[in-house]
Order: sequence, then C-alpha cells, then structure tokens
Amino acid sequence: MDQFERILGDIKSVKIQGAENVAINGVKAFRCRALKIKTGRYEKFFEEVGRIKAKIFEIRPTEPLMRNCIRYVISNLKSSPGADVPGLKKTLSKLCKEVLEHMDYAEGMIAKIAAHRIHTGMIVFTHCHSSTVVNILRYAKKEGNWFRVYNTETRPLYQGRITARELSKLRIPVVHFVDSAARIAIRKSDIALFGVDAITTTKIYNKIGSEMFAVIANKYDVPLYVCGDSWKFDPEGIYGFEETVEKRGPEEIWKNPPRGVNIENPTFERINPDLVTAVISELGVYSPENFVEEIKRAYPWICKSC
Amino acid sequence: MDQFERILGDIKSVKIQGAENVAINGVKAFRCRALKIKTGRYEKFFEEVGRIKAKIFEIRPTEPLMRNCIRYVISNLKSSPGADVPGLKKTLSKLCKEVLEHMDYAEGMIAKIAAHRIHTGMIVFTHCHSSTVVNILRYAKKEGNWFRVYNTETRPLYQGRITARELSKLRIPVVHFVDSAARIAIRKSDIALFGVDAITTTKIYNKIGSEMFAVIANKYDVPLYVCGDSWKFDPEGIYGFEETVEKRGPEEIWKNPPRGVNIENPTFERINPDLVTAVISELGVYSPENFVEEIKRAYPWICKSC
Amino acid sequence: MDQFERILGDIKSVKIQGAENVAINGVKAFRCRALKIKTGRYEKFFEEVGRIKAKIFEIRPTEPLMRNCIRYVISNLKSSPGADVPGLKKTLSKLCKEVLEHMDYAEGMIAKIAAHRIHTGMIVFTHCHSSTVVNILRYAKKEGNWFRVYNTETRPLYQGRITARELSKLRIPVVHFVDSAARIAIRKSDIALFGVDAITTTKIYNKIGSEMFAVIANKYDVPLYVCGDSWKFDPEGIYGFEETVEKRGPEEIWKNPPRGVNIENPTFERINPDLVTAVISELGVYSPENFVEEIKRAYPWICKSC
Amino acid sequence: MDQFERILGDIKSVKIQGAENVAINGVKAFRCRALKIKTGRYEKFFEEVGRIKAKIFEIRPTEPLMRNCIRYVISNLKSSPGADVPGLKKTLSKLCKEVLEHMDYAEGMIAKIAAHRIHTGMIVFTHCHSSTVVNILRYAKKEGNWFRVYNTETRPLYQGRITARELSKLRIPVVHFVDSAARIAIRKSDIALFGVDAITTTKIYNKIGSEMFAVIANKYDVPLYVCGDSWKFDPEGIYGFEETVEKRGPEEIWKNPPRGVNIENPTFERINPDLVTAVISELGVYSPENFVEEIKRAYPWICKSC
Amino acid sequence: MDQFERILGDIKSVKIQGAENVAINGVKAFRCRALKIKTGRYEKFFEEVGRIKAKIFEIRPTEPLMRNCIRYVISNLKSSPGADVPGLKKTLSKLCKEVLEHMDYAEGMIAKIAAHRIHTGMIVFTHCHSSTVVNILRYAKKEGNWFRVYNTETRPLYQGRITARELSKLRIPVVHFVDSAARIAIRKSDIALFGVDAITTTKIYNKIGSEMFAVIANKYDVPLYVCGDSWKFDPEGIYGFEETVEKRGPEEIWKNPPRGVNIENPTFERINPDLVTAVISELGVYSPENFVEEIKRAYPWICKSC
Amino acid sequence: MDQFERILGDIKSVKIQGAENVAINGVKAFRCRALKIKTGRYEKFFEEVGRIKAKIFEIRPTEPLMRNCIRYVISNLKSSPGADVPGLKKTLSKLCKEVLEHMDYAEGMIAKIAAHRIHTGMIVFTHCHSSTVVNILRYAKKEGNWFRVYNTETRPLYQGRITARELSKLRIPVVHFVDSAARIAIRKSDIALFGVDAITTTKIYNKIGSEMFAVIANKYDVPLYVCGDSWKFDPEGIYGFEETVEKRGPEEIWKNPPRGVNIENPTFERINPDLVTAVISELGVYSPENFVEEIKRAYPWICKSC
Repeated sequence: MDQFERILGDIKSVKIQGAENVAINGVKAFRCRALKIKTGRYEKFFEEVGRIKAKIFEIRPTEPLMRNCIRYVISNLKSSPGADVPGLKKTLSKLCKEVLEHMDYAEGMIAKIAAHRIHTGMIVFTHCHSSTVVNILRYAKKEGNWFRVYNTETRPLYQGRITARELSKLRIPVVHFVDSAARIAIRKSDIALFGVDAITTTKIYNKIGSEMFAVIANKYDVPLYVCGDSWKFDPEGIYGFEETVEKRGPEEIWKNPPRGVNIENPTFERINPDLVTAVISELGVYSPENFVEEIKRAYPWICKSC
Repeated sequence: MDQFERILGDIKSVKIQGAENVAINGVKAFRCRALKIKTGRYEKFFEEVGRIKAKIFEIRPTEPLMRNCIRYVISNLKSSPGADVPGLKKTLSKLCKEVLEHMDYAEGMIAKIAAHRIHTGMIVFTHCHSSTVVNILRYAKKEGNWFRVYNTETRPLYQGRITARELSKLRIPVVHFVDSAARIAIRKSDIALFGVDAITTTKIYNKIGSEMFAVIANKYDVPLYVCGDSWKFDPEGIYGFEETVEKRGPEEIWKNPPRGVNIENPTFERINPDLVTAVISELGVYSPENFVEEIKRAYPWICKSC
Repeated sequence: MDQFERILGDIKSVKIQGAENVAINGVKAFRCRALKIKTGRYEKFFEEVGRIKAKIFEIRPTEPLMRNCIRYVISNLKSSPGADVPGLKKTLSKLCKEVLEHMDYAEGMIAKIAAHRIHTGMIVFTHCHSSTVVNILRYAKKEGNWFRVYNTETRPLYQGRITARELSKLRIPVVHFVDSAARIAIRKSDIALFGVDAITTTKIYNKIGSEMFAVIANKYDVPLYVCGDSWKFDPEGIYGFEETVEKRGPEEIWKNPPRGVNIENPTFERINPDLVTAVISELGVYSPENFVEEIKRAYPWICKSC
Repeated sequence: MDQFERILGDIKSVKIQGAENVAINGVKAFRCRALKIKTGRYEKFFEEVGRIKAKIFEIRPTEPLMRNCIRYVISNLKSSPGADVPGLKKTLSKLCKEVLEHMDYAEGMIAKIAAHRIHTGMIVFTHCHSSTVVNILRYAKKEGNWFRVYNTETRPLYQGRITARELSKLRIPVVHFVDSAARIAIRKSDIALFGVDAITTTKIYNKIGSEMFAVIANKYDVPLYVCGDSWKFDPEGIYGFEETVEKRGPEEIWKNPPRGVNIENPTFERINPDLVTAVISELGVYSPENFVEEIKRAYPWICKSC
Repeated sequence: MDQFERILGDIKSVKIQGAENVAINGVKAFRCRALKIKTGRYEKFFEEVGRIKAKIFEIRPTEPLMRNCIRYVISNLKSSPGADVPGLKKTLSKLCKEVLEHMDYAEGMIAKIAAHRIHTGMIVFTHCHSSTVVNILRYAKKEGNWFRVYNTETRPLYQGRITARELSKLRIPVVHFVDSAARIAIRKSDIALFGVDAITTTKIYNKIGSEMFAVIANKYDVPLYVCGDSWKFDPEGIYGFEETVEKRGPEEIWKNPPRGVNIENPTFERINPDLVTAVISELGVYSPENFVEEIKRAYPWICKSC
Repeated sequence: MDQFERILGDIKSVKIQGAENVAINGVKAFRCRALKIKTGRYEKFFEEVGRIKAKIFEIRPTEPLMRNCIRYVISNLKSSPGADVPGLKKTLSKLCKEVLEHMDYAEGMIAKIAAHRIHTGMIVFTHCHSSTVVNILRYAKKEGNWFRVYNTETRPLYQGRITARELSKLRIPVVHFVDSAARIAIRKSDIALFGVDAITTTKIYNKIGSEMFAVIANKYDVPLYVCGDSWKFDPEGIYGFEETVEKRGPEEIWKNPPRGVNIENPTFERINPDLVTAVISELGVYSPENFVEEIKRAYPWICKSC
C-alpha cells in the first residue's frame, strides 16, 4: 500500500480529521500519485489526473475545502502555458505548495481579523472544536485581551473537551456546559464564534446543534460569527445541489441500546444564513451574502469548472 | 441509625430520587418519627412534629411535592376534631395513607387524561426521564394507539436512556438523539411531553434544557404539555420567593478537567409558562394560569399556612 | 316522521346551521320528544331522557352550545325537588324556555359589551359569517358609531357574502376581499372580531383560516376578540378530549377535479388562545384563561356531569 | 388591424397572459412593426423604434420581462457595428431570435437547477399557477423523484386549478386546498415554490397571498424559493421607482355585490425578500441580494439605459 | 372655598398627583363633604353621597384606585346593619380609615414580596417614577441586597429624576439614561419593575413608553413586573369600557413650537399583558390573568356595583 | 492660530457638526495646510500630506465621510501622472473640488431617488436631524406630494426640533413626540427615513434610539430606509475593526445630578442591518448587502489603502 492509499484510508476511517487536515493530506495524496503518472502525452496526463481527483473526492461527501484545493491545482495547471508532461509535473508541485501556503495565510488572517471583535471583559461562546476558533482566541489573548470562553461538551464525541484543553494550555479561562445548557451560556455571552464545514449560497453547515444555538443567539442579540477559510465555499449549491449530511454510527452515542431504540446521529446541520452576523474568512468580515460575492471576486476559478 | 435517618441520608445522597419517590419516602420518614414522639401533651406534640418537618424540608431545596405531602398531613391534623395524642397519632397515620392514595390517584388520572392527546401515527418528543410521562405513554399504548417517541439522551446523567429502556420494554418504538440534536427531533414531532419538578405562579421548573427546547417547540407550533401531580405547586412563589436551582458537582460532567476549566452543572431551569400549552395534572388539562386557580379550588390548604 | 326526527334530519343535512340555530332546534326536538315519554316511573323517565340526549348528541360532532343547552335542562331537572313524572315534564318545559331566554340574553349582552370597543373612524376586520358579530356591529352602529368593515369572502361556501349582505342592509360600509388578501385587510384594521364554534381550556375553534389570520393580527398588534355565548365552552377538553374537526365533501370546493387531485376541506381549525386578546361573552371581556374561570363561577353545572 | 395592434389588444384584454407569453408576443409585435419602418435614415429609424417601444410598454404596468426583452434588442442594436437601415433590420431580427432563445434556455436551466432541491417523499407547496414551477416539477418527476404537491385554489381566478390539472396530466399527486387553509398545507410541506412577476432591489412581486404565505412558511422554517427568468428583474427600483400593483375589476370576485359593499381586488403583492430563501433563475440558486449582483454581472445592459 | 373644593381643585391642576396621593385626598374630600350632609333621612343621605361621588369621579378620567376607595366605602356603608344617619356617618368615618389602612398595608406587603425577586449583583430597570417601586427598592436594600438601578429620565416631565433623587438618598447607585437609550439599559438589566396606573381584564396602563420598553424587555427575556395596589383594577373593562388616555398640553414638551408643528403628548399607554411576567400586588405575585381572579376572590365588591 | 487649527478646533468642540459639514471643513483644512507645504521633493511632500491626514483623522473617532474625502484626494494624487510638487498642489486643489462636487451630487441624487418612495397621504417617521432626510422631504414636497412627518424630539440635544423647524419652513406638517412615544408614532407611519453616521459590512451607525426604533418599525412592517452619501462606508470594518461609539458628557442630560447617579450618554448606536429595508445613497436603493457591493464597484479606492 503506497502513501496515496494510506492517506485515503486514514481519511475514510477518520484517523485524519478536521477540514484543514483532510485538505492538506488530500493534496499530499494527489500530488504524490500525480507525480507518478507514467504517460508522456498531454491529454492522457490530464485524463489520469481526473481519475485521481475522482478517487479522492469519493472518500468523504462534505469536504469542499479539500475539493477546492485540488480544483485549484488542476484549474491552474490547465491554464498554465503549454508544456510537456515533465513541465506540468513541476508546475503541479508548485501549485500544491501554493495551496498549502494559501491555507496558512488564511488561518493567520482570520485570527488577526476576528480578534478585533474580542475585547477585554467579554464572554465568548463556542461549540464543538474548531482549530480556526482556537487560533482566533490565541491571537486575541496574545494581543492583550482578557476574556472568558463558555463552551459546550459537544456530544457524542466530546470535541468541546479538546477546545477546553487547548484553551487551558493557552491560559484562557473556560466555563464548560453540557449541550442542553447552551441557552444559559449563550445568554451570558457577548459574542459567539463557530467554525464551519461548508458554505453554499443558501446554507452554512456546521456541527449538529449549531442551528439551535444560532436561534438562541439571535433571540438574545448575541452576534454570531462563522469563521473559516473561504475555500470552504461549495459552488455546487449554485446549481441546486445540496450537501449530504453525514450520519455516523449509533455506537458513538450508545453502545448497546435496547431493542426498538434507534439512534439518529447526524454529524452536522445547516444554519440559516439569516441567523449569522457575518462570515469571517481571510477575505474579511462579510455578511453571508457579501461573502459569496467576495469569493467570486477573489477566486473566480472556484465557480467555474463545477 | 433508625429508618428516619436512613431515608433522609438516601434522599440527600440521591440514592432515592424522582419527585414521587422522594415524597413517598419523605412521608414514610415523617410518619415513623412522628409516631415515636414521647409526649402526651397536645402542644408539645405539634412542636415536635414541626421540628421533624423542618428536618425533612432541609435535605433538598426543591421538592414542593414532598413538602406539600407533609403539609397536608399537619394541616389536616390541626383541624381534626380535638383529640388526645394517641388519637392524633391514629389520625396522622390515616392522613399519611391518604397522601399516598392521592399520589396513586393522581398518577392514574394524569395517564388517562394526557393519553387522550396521543393518537396513532404521532411522534411524541420527550426530554430526560419522567415516570409520569412514561405512564402516559404506557396508557396511550394500551388504549390501542401506535406512536413513536423521539427522546434525548439527557446529559450528564443519561436519564434519557432510562426512558428509552422503559419504553423498549413497553414495545414503544424510540428514536434517540444527543441533546444538541433536539431541534431536529422536536421539529418532526406532533406533541411534546415534559415532566415537571415545581410550578409557581410565574415559573415552571424542569430538567436543564427544558426552556431551550420549549423555545424550539413554540417556534414550530408543537404543543408542549407539562405533566405532573398538582401538588408540585409551590405556593411560596406567591410571596415572591424563588426556587433555588440545585447546582451539582462538576465530576458528573467531566471527571478531571484541565486547570482553568470550570464546570457549570445546573440540574434544572425555569420554563417561561407562556411557552407551555398546558399543565396536565390529576385536575385536568389547564393553561398554567388556570392550573393555579384549580389548585386553589381543589386544595385550599396548599396556599394557606405558607 | 315526527318533529323530532325532522329536526334531527335537518341538522344532519345542514339545512339547519349556525351554532345558535342548531342549539335552539336541538332543544325543541329534545323537549317535544321528552314530553311524549310514556312511563310514569321516575327512574324510567330519566333513562328515556338519557336516550333522547344521546340521539341528539350524535348528529353533529362539534356543537358544545347545543349539548350544554340540553345538559342544563337535565342537570337542573335532576336536582329539582322530587316530583312525579307530570311534574317533571312541567319543569322540563320551563327549563327549555330558560335555555332559550339565556341565549337571547347572551346575544344582547355580547352586542352591548363588545360595541364599547368599536369607535367612530375604526376599521373592523371579520372573517366568515357570525350572527353574533353582525349583532355587535348593528348595536355599535345604532349607538352612533361610524365605522367600516373589511371582510373575507370565506371560501368554499362564501359565508363572507352573507355578512356583507347583512351589513349592507344595516348601511354599514364594507370592503370585501378574497381570503388570500386578508393580510392586507387586517393590517389596515383597528380591531378584529371573530365568532366562535367551541372553546376548550387549551383551544378555540373557528372557521378555517382563523389561525392564519390570528397570526397576522398578532404580527400587526391588531386586537382580536372572539365573540360568543359562553355556553360554547366544551368541558370535555379538561379531560383531555379534543374536538373532532369536521371535514366536508370535496365538491364544495371543486365539482369535478381531475384524477389524482385530492381535495382537503376542513371546516374549522383551532386558534392558539395566546393569539386571542379576549373572549367576549355575556359574562364580559376576559382573556381566554379568565373566561374559563368565569364559566366555572357562573355555570358550575357545565363542568360537572361530563 | 395589423398583427401589431392585434397582439397589443390581446395583451391588454388579458387574452394573452403569463409573463413569458406576454414577453414572447410583445417581442413578436415589436419585431413585425419595426421591420415595417419606412425610413432609410439611421437616426429616424431609432426614433421610430423608440415610439414602438413606448407603445408596447404602455399596455401593461408590470411586465419587466417583456420590457427587458425589448430593451435587450434595442440596446444591442445601438451598439452593433455601424450599418444602414436594412442591415439594422437584419440585426434586429437576429436579436429578437436571441431573446426567444434566452427564454427557452432560462426555462430549461431553472427546471434543472430547482429540481435538485426536490427529493422523493417530499411535499411541495405552491400557490397560483406558474409555468416555471410546473416545469420544475415535471423535471423533478422525470428524474425519478416521487413527491406530492399541496396547492391553493387561488381565488378569484382559480389559477390553482390550472396547476392541479397540469400536474394531474403529469401524474404528480396533488392535494388541493382553499386559500384560507394554506397555513395547514404549508405546515406539512418540506419546500415551497413560487413563480414571480417582478424583482427589484428591495421587493419581490407575486400573486396576492404570497406575502402572507411567505410569513407562514418562515414561521415553520419551510424554505421558500421564488423561481423565474432573471430578466424579470426591474432595474427602475434602483432609482426608487416602485411597481404599480394592478387592481382588477370587482366582478372577478363578486358579480353583483349589494350596495355599500366595495370590492378590493389587487392582483399581486410585494414579498419581503427577507422571507425568501433564494431566487432560482437560470443564473443559479441565489439569495435575493446575490441575485441582484448576478444580474448585474451577467446582463450589465439591464441596469444601464434605465 | 371649603376643603372639598380645594382638594378637587388641586387634583385637577395636578398639584396633587400620583395614584396613591390622589386616592388619599379623594377619600379625605369625600369624607369631609359627606359628614356635612344635612338630611336625617336614610334615602336622601345616600342620594347626596351619590352626588359627591359623581363630582369626585369627574375630575380625573383614569384613577381607578381613587374610585375603588370611594366605592369601597359606599358599598360597605350600604350593606352595614340598618342605622340612622348619625350612625351612618360614624360608619363612614370608620370605613374611610379602613381605606387608608388598606393602602398602607398594600404598600408594605408589595415591598416585602417584590423585594424577594431582587438579589445582590442585579441590575434593576425602571421607567418614570413610582413610589411603589422606590419602596420595593428601599426594602430590598434594607434586607441587605446590593444592586444597581438603570432608569430613564422620562420626558416630558423628568419624573425619572425624582426616582434618581430618591434612590440617591437611599444610597442605591443609579445609572441614568435618556429615554431613547432604554434598549441598551434594559438589555443589561436582570429585572424590570414598573409602577402601574390601571389594570383591566385585557390591558395594563402605565407611563408613555411602557409598551415599547415591555417589547424590548421581552425580546431580551428580562422579566417585567408591574407593581401596584390591587385596587388599581378597573372592573369597567369587563363590560367593554376602555380607559381614556389623558392627553396633556403641548407646552410640557415644547413651549413655542413653530407653526405647522403639532405636539402629541399622551400621558400613558396600554401594555399588552402578554408582555408582563406578573403583577405584584399586596395579594402576591400573579400573572395578569391570575391577578384578575385574586381580585375577585379578595375583593368581591370591586366587580359588583359597576 | 491659522485656518487649519481653527477648523480642527471647531470640529472638536462640535461647533462644526453633521457628517457633511465636518467633511467639507475637514477637506478645507486639509487643502489649506497641504498647499502650504514647503518642500519641493516628491516623497517629502507625501510624507507631509500623511502627517496632515493623521492630525485631521484624530479629532473625531467616527467620521468615515470626512476620512474618505481626504483618502480620495490622496489616493488619486498618488496615482496621477508623475509631476513636480507645484503640479501636485494644482491636482490636489482640483481633487478637493471634486470631493465637494461629489457631495453636492450625492445629496441631490439621494433626494431625487428617495422621494420616489414618498406619496401623497403618507406619514413619514424620522428621528433626530439629518440634512439628507430634510432634503428628501423638500424634494418630495416640491414634486407635488402632500404628506405628514412624525418625528421625535431626540434628547438630549433636541435635534428633532431642528428637523421640525426646517420642515415648518418648508410648510410640511409635523407631529412631534417625546422619544418614548416613538412606538405610537412609528405604528401609524407608512415609511421611516433615518440619516446615517457610518456603514460597515455588518453594522449601520446612527443616533442613539435608532436600533430600538428599527426593532419597532420591523414589528409593524414599516419599511425603514437609511439615507446617506455612500462615502459614509467605513472599509475598516472588513478587517474586523469596529466603530468607537462616542460617549458625551453627562451635563448634556442632567446638569447637577445627585451623588451616586451616573449618567450614560452614548451619542449613537449600531442598527442591525437585518432591520433596514435599504440604504438609499447616490448609487441607488440597495439592501445593506448590495450597498456594500455597489460601493466596491463605484469607488474601488475606498477599500484599497485601508
């Protein structure tokens, strides 16, 4: 089993997880397999590349960031000045590096921008674990702000504990609640920060619970920011396609439920964009509607080859 | 350690739990200790009874049902025709039996009444575990209705699993969700049934999460019934007193949280009565406001000696 | 076919319609058949009366006014001082007269009370046809108020045209809308007056469309009054029973729909009492919750024999 | 009377109706009259064309699709490379054909895109008759989805029956309701699809009832899509102008109303864009705000010569 | 000019103001004039008393407390055991004293009850000036609670400054806002306390601004208590009558407005009872609906002679 | 003290006030000081210009219009074809003139566009004083529309009286309310027009009270337009920065408050863009989201050098 297959296996088994990690490894897998393509003919090469792409896209239904990373490489490869296959491979390597650089840049910019909304004395609500949100909080702390975080444990996988642990290391005080106490936590908060899995023109996808908590945040006028790399935008929504919401195994919730008890375990859910104050991406702080325009302006290739 | 102290210890340590169980045992403890009162003088006897009452009331802050049960006995004892102490003890025993009969009767009536709102084809949402709600569902099933139950696991103590197990035994199909997925469960439901811990003139107390789920039920026009013995009414609210919401230990949620991570573990919360379609008690199906009037009409002693 | 059977037939075929008309004729049928009872024995007499009652109650599912009228007679008959059968028949006749007098009195009082809420310059919204509402408007006009009525046509049976015709005769100006334009009509109105078919402790029943229009009236803060004889209260709701909403034939909506097109024709629907400013009955202007208390206070027999 | 005048007459008398039909015939009339222009001088020719345009624009107040079709032709004609009048006429003919091709293309694309949001098991709510919505449903059916449609009869002209008939032919099951029962229909639906008459930067115009039903759809979180050719965008709203809402004759509602009864018969009404999930046009699925941007990007001429 | 006329004059000119003050003085005026009645005949005496009552009721449209005070005296006088006129006068004096004692008792009880809802660390929002609310705050302070008050200046007469001054003397810290900043003040508050002018079965009347602030308090789930003597209940609302909202002179707002500028100066406005958590009176903490029942139970004479 | 310092002093002391006035004078100050720069070297010149800019930006925290005016000049100056310092000064003078022309043009266009939304018979609500809004009303009047204005007095500085006076001169009838009566005024209005201080991608800033009144306008479906020069857009919000809301002195509200009474006097507050129907600028009538796109399209330099 080569690196390509090992990475794909690890993504499938959720050994590799988190949109950013999946994307980085997906690109790595793509690159290593593409560089091994045997043909010397231009058309054949792109045929092969298409097959690799298809294989990677298959493993996980909802990873627009990973898909956009690979689409970036192919789209630019096609429009790069005519070359032979060895030339293409060199360009491909360079493009893969650009993708990783983009992700680094985005992470940094988001932290810097979003941190401007966090001030000393504030309570920040968050749900689940998002490396982007933790980065923002780290940055805000580093800038000299003293604030507290209220977070949920996030059943079934307790990702809220990962968040709490990371913040503990950053010496940011945390108050930790069960998910059903989120209303109480949100009501006392000054701002809510969520990560994000996918954004389409009509929907924002994030961890299960996000829509209910967004309803509550709106009820109490707590501004809710969804924070993530703009490449999480999925252009297929424009054409009417909807994200498939992954349903995971019941055993994550209850090992041996009695007979007649079925367990429903949706991983994430759609947030109505009307409940979201703004999307914070490396492009800036924009309403969900303006975010769509920014994406088109900054990355026109994203909407093209869909 | 006699029976009195053993019961009080068990209530304190939550070995004995559930409003009904606590009340039954509280009455038992009260009766056994009262029967042992040594004095032969009328006034002395009531002084002693008052002391026993005070001890029992102390163990748990929010048990209006238990308190009302004991208040029923004392209130009637005082107004019973003049007697000597042995006569009083006989009456006291009889009154304690009446209390238990009341609770039996109430449980039966609630099941019968509430079951009229459950029809074949329905989905019933419930949260946490309430023996009253399980009784209703048992009765509705026995009456020939085929319905399903959507319930939450109810962190931190997973009382939702108790509900699921009991329904499984009754062969009522259950779909089980994590708490944060409650919105999805409620939206698909036709009716929501909650148990209840305490009712005052302005507030209804139930398991943490109840207010958030009540907000959601209202959003989707899912009728929400709060079901319980009318003696859960706490008259002290009339005089402005508020229930103390018990906060339990952090270890129920997370055994060894990292330093700097505090855990907030409120057991229950207040539901705004405006979000509740009706209280279903042995007195009938009444809006929270009419419920207060019914209580005063049916049990005038409840509001008296407060 | 005697008078009893003729009336029952006419009620069944909707030749006799409108809660008040149905009640008057139900009482008439009850009286004429009860007076013909042959037995001279007290118990037998009441058995027979019970059978007549049952027959009348069967014809229409949702006529609490008619049911309460007959229950009033029987309840009082039973508690009237011991008499022989001829004496009972005399009392029964007297009680039937009292029922009709009650209905007359109620109609008059409601008009007088509700008219105090209508002032010169106002726009009054109404839906469907209610003789009670037309009476209120007649009274308000007679008292010297100049106002206009906005009303709906009320498909499928165009009862809104009956309202418009009656108001035209009273020289009250009307603006008439299709049902789907009700939002526009309500928004411009100062007050909304609805008739009512049945009231329970948790629900108010009226013509289809009433809940949607009540939602709209609330949105625009237009006070919504439900007007009717307090005997339209159905005590069975206390015990959990719900009104059966009559579904009428599809031909009322579309004579010959193409195949595959089903027609849903519910006659009335439930209004959430939270959307109703007050019930105006002969007992006064009361919130739905206070109305329930007034009914119990003024007519204790209504909740008894259920 | 030549073809030009006959068509204009038919549009005025509503013999020709539906935004698409009116546009097709308007272009036809425009073309036939323009080709008959006698002058050989360039400026004179455009003067004449302007007069023809003005005549056509006059007949109906709210037909942005028709207006945009003709504006497309003139705008392109003016910017086409300098030619003599015969050359202009040839170009004009070609441009008219392009317009019809655009409309065909749009209809096809909308069906394809919107159908992605319809899945087996769904209930689809619609109001009035929209050929675009029927096309979407036909396409979704053809793609193998089994769903049901809930629709309103749409008084006063019963266009809901046209919808029901067309769906019946397509063997799509329909449940048909009176307009006032729409709340009940919407509540049970998974998605709502409306056609559209005009879109401006702040308002969406559709059949009377649409705003009330949109309020209800939002209340129950039923996603509401407005579906139509993007050329229904009316750029004059940018400059503050508002659509004139046609008020049609009272006889459509009630032939001989009694004196004093006025009938209000507005044909359509404004929907608040905040209540609309997305506009589905040939450009894709976009929030109303993003739709405006797409229009500007795809058809810059639309906003220009206003 | 005797005392009677002087007091009436002072009430009319608002020299005497505040519901409690007006009531105390109204009773004083009533008593002094009634004791001077010349006749020795029973019927004549009551005729005279009726005339005095009418004169006092005329001076101010919306003073239910004053009206109820006098109605209490007359109602009890009529039902007191048959006596001659001197005996009646003695009883009348006694009854007047009872009225004042009631008001004292009510004020004390309200303070005691409502203070239970104020805890250390809270922010209490209030609007305008209410001696009842200031009393509550004084009591809560005295009981050892440390809290802050956010209040409005209450244009046009700056009664908010009176509140601020009185609280300043009590050493309760105050933050003072212009009326338009009330949203910001309410949002940060834990509880809102309003006085009250009149309560009917469907409406609660208080200072202009109260409904808007109640809307805001509800938006943010800040519990809103209306605090006042239960005798502020106006039973005439039961019969459909509405309070007349006093409109005061424009010069209170702007001395010399330019021509064409009219000034609207309504003194108070109606609060929708649905926005009020509870009425706190000497009878306890009750929802507006339960308050109505309590009034009927505690003071049956209030609803009688209306 | 030269002109530069005098103007800056007057802006600081609020002698010069109103976004437009501040901008005009800021540009004037900038120009006069820049023309006096001594250096002949290109780089030095821009260094000096930068220093002047910094000084002007300092005086007031929230004047995006003034800042954008000066940024327009500098940005264009930098990209103008290479020249020596005297040439630069000439260009600078020309650019300053362009800025003033832009402001004139914007004011005229806004009046013309917004006036299309005002029709005879309407009631227009406004708060505070905005020269832009008064201009709109003047234009609408001139165009032959007869309408009325409902406005607030706007404590603490009574800018509502300025509005009333100016409208009085224009012979537009005004009804004037205290701020707390705004709900009543808004409910009767057909449209609400606000000026604006600053617009960012997520927030709109205007006079204190604006958000509360926007909440009320939305409750009653009264369309709310925010009117102002598009250069009031502050691009820094894109990068997460928030406007500093100026808090002015307590003496504006209460000269000598008693001790312990603090006065909170925020000048303006944020309006949630979701509550705003549209921004009306010289660019047209656009939703807040589309406004952001228009700004970027029309004035790309605004977002650049931030």
